[in-house]
Amino acid sequence: MKLQLALDVTDKKKALTLCKKIKKHIDIIELGTPFIKIYGLNGLVKDFKKLKKPVLADLKTMDTGFFEAELAYKDEADYSTVCASAYIETIKGTISAAKKYKKKCLVDLIGVKEPVAKAREILKYKPDYIGIHSGIDMQHMGIKPLSTLVELSKVMPSTKIAVAGGINLETIESIAKYKPGIIIVGGAITQAKNPIAVAKKMKEIMKKYE
Amino acid sequence: MKLQLALDVTDKKKALTLCKKIKKHIDIIELGTPFIKIYGLNGLVKDFKKLKKPVLADLKTMDTGFFEAELAYKDEADYSTVCASAYIETIKGTISAAKKYKKKCLVDLIGVKEPVAKAREILKYKPDYIGIHSGIDMQHMGIKPLSTLVELSKVMPSTKIAVAGGINLETIESIAKYKPGIIIVGGAITQAKNPIAVAKKMKEIMKKYE
Repeated sequence: MKLQLALDVTDKKKALTLCKKIKKHIDIIELGTPFIKIYGLNGLVKDFKKLKKPVLADLKTMDTGFFEAELAYKDEADYSTVCASAYIETIKGTISAAKKYKKKCLVDLIGVKEPVAKAREILKYKPDYIGIHSGIDMQHMGIKPLSTLVELSKVMPSTKIAVAGGINLETIESIAKYKPGIIIVGGAITQAKNPIAVAKKMKEIMKKYE
Repeated sequence: MKLQLALDVTDKKKALTLCKKIKKHIDIIELGTPFIKIYGLNGLVKDFKKLKKPVLADLKTMDTGFFEAELAYKDEADYSTVCASAYIETIKGTISAAKKYKKKCLVDLIGVKEPVAKAREILKYKPDYIGIHSGIDMQHMGIKPLSTLVELSKVMPSTKIAVAGGINLETIESIAKYKPGIIIVGGAITQAKNPIAVAKKMKEIMKKYE
């Protein structure tokens, strides 16, 4: 199980400082979608790659699947994301770019009303990960990712599932029990008083289930 | 009817040069999604706003609707976009940011399987525009926006419809007949031998139906 730190932030300097301190407790640095839209991939990916950790560019691609993923991979991102609600050729494009560049891709179920059915449809094309994702706007409405994780882990290998959506120190154990490939945490780390202690504790909880 | 030039390009300097020459023949400059993801909103919007034309930031937002739209509007974009396939609170967030900043938003139907039903659901929240959009990956599969335009114009005012997807000099008249609020053209202008002549001709065709 990998712990992915979602940089749901807007200040590049602060984010780099945090990542430098926290990197030994996390496995993947996620450049959040608004973060990329503010600064652009140019430079942003390379700056974080200097920390010698895998970087995920959360592009949430909705069109030109191959082209956008290629931009991220050429900028040295290790992972790129595409939305499950995109047209199927867009998703296939992202998957094929990942194969070409020997990188990874994650198909994000954000916004999809029937996530298990949609995941089954997409699994045929062999993405590296399918992401269960209660977006920030969904979290504000009390929607959590656990119930979808329970259902999805019945129909696909849990190692190919990524889970995101308001996961914190109280809830991470309920997620880790299902052994998803990636657990994604944003605010519970970035907005913590002591982000390093939180990340370290989270990894300890995850290790109990490995 | 407005003619929107979609900058489905990656070279900022060339795009600015083209826009300077073509601006009197178009109504809105669209900063395409990959273009924003490469350069970031910081700087990009302001550079194009110097041309004194309305600018649309094609963010294709899938989460944090208010926050992403606010980023674009604060950077002086006149229009921002959100995906119809996003969670409804995300769409409502973009619409409310547009109202707050006295700007416009467009809800993009890209990837939606039942566009007319989805448009009806979203219209309740009074977006400025609903966008019919055969994405570039869809165009490669021969999918065109006209049939959806015919259906959608039966259930909502055509002035609130935007249409995009491989529209060119041969097909623009079939679109203009339905008098959508915005006609979006990308490659047919940006990849033309004489982009200015194409845009000028397109506006002439559109004017026949105004």
